[in-house]
Amino acid sequence: MKTDFKNGDYDTVGFSEDGRRLAYIDQTLLPNEVRFVETDDLNEMRQAIYLLKVRGAPAIGVAAAIGVYVLANKLMYMGYHEEDMFLQALQMQAEVLASARPTAVNLKWAVNRMMNRAQTCVGLGVDGIVDELKREATLIRDQDIEVCRKLGENGLEVLEKGQGILTHCNAGRLATVRYGTATSPIYLGQERGYDFKVYADETRPLLQGARLTSFELASAGVDVTLICDDMAASVMKQGKVQTVITGCDRVALNGDAANKIGTLGVAVMAKHFGIPFYIAAPTSSIDFSIPSGDSIVIEERDGDEIKNMWYEKPMAPEAAKTYNPAFDVTDADLITGIITEYGIVRPPYRQTMRELRDTIKREKEKANEMRGHE
Amino acid sequence: MKTDFKNGDYDTVGFSEDGRRLAYIDQTLLPNEVRFVETDDLNEMRQAIYLLKVRGAPAIGVAAAIGVYVLANKLMYMGYHEEDMFLQALQMQAEVLASARPTAVNLKWAVNRMMNRAQTCVGLGVDGIVDELKREATLIRDQDIEVCRKLGENGLEVLEKGQGILTHCNAGRLATVRYGTATSPIYLGQERGYDFKVYADETRPLLQGARLTSFELASAGVDVTLICDDMAASVMKQGKVQTVITGCDRVALNGDAANKIGTLGVAVMAKHFGIPFYIAAPTSSIDFSIPSGDSIVIEERDGDEIKNMWYEKPMAPEAAKTYNPAFDVTDADLITGIITEYGIVRPPYRQTMRELRDTIKREKEKANEMRGHE
Repeated sequence: MKTDFKNGDYDTVGFSEDGRRLAYIDQTLLPNEVRFVETDDLNEMRQAIYLLKVRGAPAIGVAAAIGVYVLANKLMYMGYHEEDMFLQALQMQAEVLASARPTAVNLKWAVNRMMNRAQTCVGLGVDGIVDELKREATLIRDQDIEVCRKLGENGLEVLEKGQGILTHCNAGRLATVRYGTATSPIYLGQERGYDFKVYADETRPLLQGARLTSFELASAGVDVTLICDDMAASVMKQGKVQTVITGCDRVALNGDAANKIGTLGVAVMAKHFGIPFYIAAPTSSIDFSIPSGDSIVIEERDGDEIKNMWYEKPMAPEAAKTYNPAFDVTDADLITGIITEYGIVRPPYRQTMRELRDTIKREKEKANEMRGHE
Repeated sequence: MKTDFKNGDYDTVGFSEDGRRLAYIDQTLLPNEVRFVETDDLNEMRQAIYLLKVRGAPAIGVAAAIGVYVLANKLMYMGYHEEDMFLQALQMQAEVLASARPTAVNLKWAVNRMMNRAQTCVGLGVDGIVDELKREATLIRDQDIEVCRKLGENGLEVLEKGQGILTHCNAGRLATVRYGTATSPIYLGQERGYDFKVYADETRPLLQGARLTSFELASAGVDVTLICDDMAASVMKQGKVQTVITGCDRVALNGDAANKIGTLGVAVMAKHFGIPFYIAAPTSSIDFSIPSGDSIVIEERDGDEIKNMWYEKPMAPEAAKTYNPAFDVTDADLITGIITEYGIVRPPYRQTMRELRDTIKREKEKANEMRGHE
């Protein structure tokens, strides 16, 4: 794991240097403290995910995969040399890990994939299984890096040197292993001297733009300016922004995209000022089974996040009601393009999203065939 | 001064019950403490304005007018019975009061008007001058209440019972004596059983919507819901808002309106969702001498307000730059109407604003004639 923090060249989650522990940056301490933690303790790993020290769907998945390997390795060193006993013990621990955030799809997915791999390796002996688990976790990590990098390359095609780019929330490296999604074109451009001027919305109420995005971009040497959410229209009107790129939580078949609250407003403003608005979406976050954004249920969170959280004292009276939706849905007709690892999908989405679905299917079949030939 | 806080029936600034002191609500303590302060101390009055305990152009003007009367009354009680000495002492104190906020136009205007009145009363004796100053301060206060009330009546004409109304920042009673500007139709509707559902943007970075608007509306029994600025698009999309009304700092001849940062974005979103967007502007805030909003210089404030203010610990890294404009300019073509005490001015503003200017001129001539006939 790279931990050269000074140059911003670090992985958010990875293997410790001795290869036996999970290493991660504790995001709850940002931006005031940068602490890399290494652990092989089940409870500590579970807490890291539960307490959002590790956050972001891809990062959680990779942390869980490495976590399962680390637990397996530790069991072996503890004396589990009999496959049955070993797998039984590992299964129990994996379930504890998977329970850290019941709604995190990537967590369950990664743990299941690791345990399935373990099952297919029965007969290789415990040390053989542990070796294969390390390989599988490494593969999951490398796939995440590769998807983000490809997505970044595709995104970079619509950007020009010196451009102003506005982003909302954190779809950055801190949510993945490296590069991030919305930030991936920015990091790749940074490596190639594109000199972007990035504007980061602070993203109330949880301030991911302030705490995470402005932190990670500034630490990587990117020219980043933090603004309040209600300043986005001003910087657009002043011609400081040529492109908007945000991440997304879920894209529907018609191109509607659910993302952190505030994304819809940014998209509306971008359209008004004639600025292209892109969503960065690894295809794992596209849900081809939902026809439109109308099917996406929006989580409503506690009003305490608006009135009290982070503050020295309450900033609103108890008598005032609050409304605190965690996400909004940006209508497809506001989205210039959806940047994926397979390329940029553009309107008419009804057609292009189906083509993307077919492409993914073909690629998967090809990958399975290759595996079959091994 | 009404101070029945429980029913929200209070004046922001006024005379104390004994009529000898300035009374005001200390807005720096809101929303956590409601404290009415009474003072006849020059330094305390000056600090109240300097430290924003009294804020909002109209409220500052009224506080200064009452302040000059209070100082005059105190001088009389201290033994100044000779007009020359009295006026000299009062002039010195008035200048100290006027220096509290050098850029506050209403402050200077009110102090000058009071001192001019004092000069025209020379010959009535000190007690006669003091009486006239009390009358003048009362007039200034009553005019503010009357302008806000008329503006509210005009605004109420475009609202329907049960409507959802979104507002930004605080153009409420706390910025005036009573009623406020953008809130005036809301209060009048409240008195008449209109049952509005108000959405208040919190208005980062200074949180006037949270600290002041949600406070004053809730305390008056209005159904108010506090949201973060980046949630406005969501409530609009969900059909929860039928009208947007904000205040303004300055309107140009072509209808462009400068107001608290974020207003432009709200106007853009309202247009996208087909929601009427109104500016509430007493004609004292219309500057017929500037052709368009391009002439309005936007104050840029310290980034500390974004990164640190209100928080327990910094929410953004030192390395991140900030951009913190205090205002933005909403283009006239985004404004459905400008609600004034003379009625609602609508497009084409190039024509209607000139008509308004002529109306004001005629009304002033009429008022002067009446005065001449006294």
